[in-house]
Amino acid sequence: MKKRLVIIGGVAAGPKAAAKAQRCDPDMAVVIYQEEGEISYSGCGLPYYVGGTIPERKKLLIKTAEQFGRDGIQVLKRHRVDHLDLEKRQVSGLKLDTGKPFADTYDRLVIATGSEVIRPKVPGLDFENVFQLHSIYDADAILLKVRSSAVKNVVIVGGGYIGLEMAEALTALGKKVAIVELASQIATLFDADLAGILRQYLEKKGITVLTSEGLEALGGENGTVRRVQTSKRQIPAEAVLLSLGVRPRVELARKAGLKIGKTGAIWVNEYMETSVPGVYAAGDCAETTHLVTGKNTWVPLGSTANKQGRTAGINLCGGRSAFPVVLGTAIFKVFDFNVAKTGLSMKEAHREGFEPVQAIVRGYGRAHILPGGRESILKVVADQKSGRILGAQALGEGPSDKFIDTVAMALQGRMTCAQLATADLAYSPPFSPALSPVIVAANVLLNKLEGKVGWLSAAEVKEIMETGKDGFAILDVRDLKEVQEKRIPGSIWIPLEELESRVGELDRDKQWAVHCHSGARSYRACLKLQHRKFKTVRNVDGGLLCWRYDLESKDGGKLTPREDE
Amino acid sequence: MKKRLVIIGGVAAGPKAAAKAQRCDPDMAVVIYQEEGEISYSGCGLPYYVGGTIPERKKLLIKTAEQFGRDGIQVLKRHRVDHLDLEKRQVSGLKLDTGKPFADTYDRLVIATGSEVIRPKVPGLDFENVFQLHSIYDADAILLKVRSSAVKNVVIVGGGYIGLEMAEALTALGKKVAIVELASQIATLFDADLAGILRQYLEKKGITVLTSEGLEALGGENGTVRRVQTSKRQIPAEAVLLSLGVRPRVELARKAGLKIGKTGAIWVNEYMETSVPGVYAAGDCAETTHLVTGKNTWVPLGSTANKQGRTAGINLCGGRSAFPVVLGTAIFKVFDFNVAKTGLSMKEAHREGFEPVQAIVRGYGRAHILPGGRESILKVVADQKSGRILGAQALGEGPSDKFIDTVAMALQGRMTCAQLATADLAYSPPFSPALSPVIVAANVLLNKLEGKVGWLSAAEVKEIMETGKDGFAILDVRDLKEVQEKRIPGSIWIPLEELESRVGELDRDKQWAVHCHSGARSYRACLKLQHRKFKTVRNVDGGLLCWRYDLESKDGGKLTPREDE
Repeated sequence: MKKRLVIIGGVAAGPKAAAKAQRCDPDMAVVIYQEEGEISYSGCGLPYYVGGTIPERKKLLIKTAEQFGRDGIQVLKRHRVDHLDLEKRQVSGLKLDTGKPFADTYDRLVIATGSEVIRPKVPGLDFENVFQLHSIYDADAILLKVRSSAVKNVVIVGGGYIGLEMAEALTALGKKVAIVELASQIATLFDADLAGILRQYLEKKGITVLTSEGLEALGGENGTVRRVQTSKRQIPAEAVLLSLGVRPRVELARKAGLKIGKTGAIWVNEYMETSVPGVYAAGDCAETTHLVTGKNTWVPLGSTANKQGRTAGINLCGGRSAFPVVLGTAIFKVFDFNVAKTGLSMKEAHREGFEPVQAIVRGYGRAHILPGGRESILKVVADQKSGRILGAQALGEGPSDKFIDTVAMALQGRMTCAQLATADLAYSPPFSPALSPVIVAANVLLNKLEGKVGWLSAAEVKEIMETGKDGFAILDVRDLKEVQEKRIPGSIWIPLEELESRVGELDRDKQWAVHCHSGARSYRACLKLQHRKFKTVRNVDGGLLCWRYDLESKDGGKLTPREDE
Repeated sequence: MKKRLVIIGGVAAGPKAAAKAQRCDPDMAVVIYQEEGEISYSGCGLPYYVGGTIPERKKLLIKTAEQFGRDGIQVLKRHRVDHLDLEKRQVSGLKLDTGKPFADTYDRLVIATGSEVIRPKVPGLDFENVFQLHSIYDADAILLKVRSSAVKNVVIVGGGYIGLEMAEALTALGKKVAIVELASQIATLFDADLAGILRQYLEKKGITVLTSEGLEALGGENGTVRRVQTSKRQIPAEAVLLSLGVRPRVELARKAGLKIGKTGAIWVNEYMETSVPGVYAAGDCAETTHLVTGKNTWVPLGSTANKQGRTAGINLCGGRSAFPVVLGTAIFKVFDFNVAKTGLSMKEAHREGFEPVQAIVRGYGRAHILPGGRESILKVVADQKSGRILGAQALGEGPSDKFIDTVAMALQGRMTCAQLATADLAYSPPFSPALSPVIVAANVLLNKLEGKVGWLSAAEVKEIMETGKDGFAILDVRDLKEVQEKRIPGSIWIPLEELESRVGELDRDKQWAVHCHSGARSYRACLKLQHRKFKTVRNVDGGLLCWRYDLESKDGGKLTPREDE
């Protein structure tokens, strides 16, 4: 008799599992129960649909129920599965269009129930024009209301990647956008320095960014939202997008008695099989393992969902395919900034018990001899003890995606800085500098691991400046043109090229923090000063790129000692 | 006493070794002997200087002799080293400006003499307007003469990457360009199928491409070249670029008694040290090891030169840094095509004794739901026995560089197809399809390794068609619109979506070659036919993308059986 495969959930992992199983075993009967009226659509494309980059709704739809039908996969839309009996191998639920119940039995089951949005517990959530963006219907609802000229101000609650993508989309629709984030920074998966650069960029683009600020209430008139009350202020808003994140949707699995992991998602083994044989879970509702930490983790992303669905599809047909691990690789675009990450940030690495060191370099997408190069700032993190690469973050208008994919592969290969430094990457002037920024970062890390030069973060320099530590001094080794534009107040300026001849002007006994624009020239300056027997010389990580504090402008007086003479 | 480091050669590896050594040991005296009048320039940028993308010559110059001087590195330009005495640790030669001799001694030596161009042995090489492109002075000479309106036709002898880059540059200058290549294809490092696609693209761009055609003589008038005689025809040419490739420049090292490797380049260990302690070689004159084959190899590229120079610089100061291996990763741009490779091609893998299988997939730089996606064709090669990834090639307007860097990292990590298939790469619609084309290729390879479906190359299909094998038939499973545009003569057409219902029209006993546009739909068709007990079903690798033979157009009659009825 034909085996019967039942799949619960039809957005990403579910359809993928169905298609793969059907190809592996064309004799299997496959049915997908999908609660929504649409199946197999690009959830990641929703912000682009709202913003107008994707003009037609149907572009989001990857494969129709009819197309699945022709491949021998039955799709039952608007069928909500409410109950799962693991003993009887039975699912049952409600046909949402008729209100009538249905039931089905399975030989193999795939749970792909996805995630659900986290809703804040504040008054006013029921006002009109309070949105979330999770399903294609949410996007429809936003477009229906927000395009109206009556909506001028939109507040986005939550500064994660969907909130940021939507900030661009809503700006494209002509709205004034404010982001309210409870944490001390937006994009909390990133380190504070890079998140600070992103914040400055968004502010330049006209977005209001409010951090360390909690949502307290929504206020409205005539049933429609009109304002947002935060812990610090009231903000006018004719529409609000709640974007506080998602959690795994596991109620069905939990009630049925399937094991739930520590992350709150459904526990699965490397074959995507749950605690009950023959029952699989894939996509946003399932747990996975983090390659760097070795711990269970939950990373709800479309690419992972696709791969997990495929893996489940193979294994439930009797194949043996392991989906071992994830790295937390993620990317988003906001205006012209490409923002990407893989593995651990510095703060995550600290939390996981590593001794992380970082390299921050300027990453261009072409050789500097060619015009039109675009820059991303690249941070690569490694472990001081083992030299192993732990992660990377990149942001800017340059090829962040390429840098991050390269480091992701280094993570998968469990490479050290020394191995990454010898990577044989594609070079020609239109595509890369002769040494890829990834390799430059690996070299910077090697220098740090060898302890050649000490370093300070911009935040540490700022803290020392404020606590007024005696004998501390900042040396700026940039060129005249750069210094005229902006400089750190109180810093001493000697361009790198003059350092050798003017080193006598500096006090060897002071504790020197040396900086330039990005940290490369100041590194060389540190070597020179150490060679001249300066006692304490430290390089400022990421230089002015990561300096988000006060700067003196040209008009701020007190420029270079030499220029003043 | 100060140690003295002498470096012979000042383009890429030499200056890099000097800078790194000076940083590692600031007390070392460093001198660079450079034969040319310029030092430290971008050799890879020369075609862009000729074509006008780089408008100013000085942009090519990375660091001047004065800048080196300020870092404590002495540069002696127009000094040709003619003799090397390894016993006495002495170099000597000629000051080219004065004709006077010079001599120097060293504690450490770096040989970075680069490569030299291969000149054909034919009459007429001494005519005016016969060029090569190797040094910045060659580029100057080309620009001086070729911009003249008297030069209308340029013949490029050699279809390697410099010849191809120059084809674009010279087209940008308004010249009519023909490429003459002795081999049966251009870009000989690539497999014939991809090289064929590149050829068609160049021809669309107005370049004449002549393969399997040898240069026999250059003809001229009044001392200037006027025509090129090949083994097949005479071509008018008011300028000729000889671009037959380069070989390592090792005469000095050979005469001094240093070991020369099998590749003809200077033998070095993994620390870039030659057969004589204290003497290093780096860049285009030095050998290296290929990670995939484990054999010594010679890959003259700017990125490798930089890394080797750095490695030599560290080690000659007493450090221990290994430059273990290369992958032969390379990339070039020609018009809007990005052409890249890493590791082994199919033909190279065969030659090295592997049992290679390939996956050819369409690689987009963004999700198909977003407009404006650009495509590169990606081929990934793996070993049938071990499942190990062996190499990749990519070409087209898409992100070939990203695909190739990703596979290069997989090669460095010695990954299998199964490992590559689970790579956690950055996905969001503006940057990638949900499954990266690299992962799709790995999945295709996994299917092949499991022997699910047999396959044929386009060339094999063509050969069978020509030899008229009985019982052989071609099934086209594309959509109507595609078939109306072009189809393989004699093929039978049933769109994939109708295959299930119309399978009775096909003879199960025939040997079926199934194709679509790229090979993905036809793979699914093969599975369906096998499931229906068809005896011999094979998928055509790369589909029409790699079909470079006759096609029927819409007007060619004999369209679909169904449409004809």
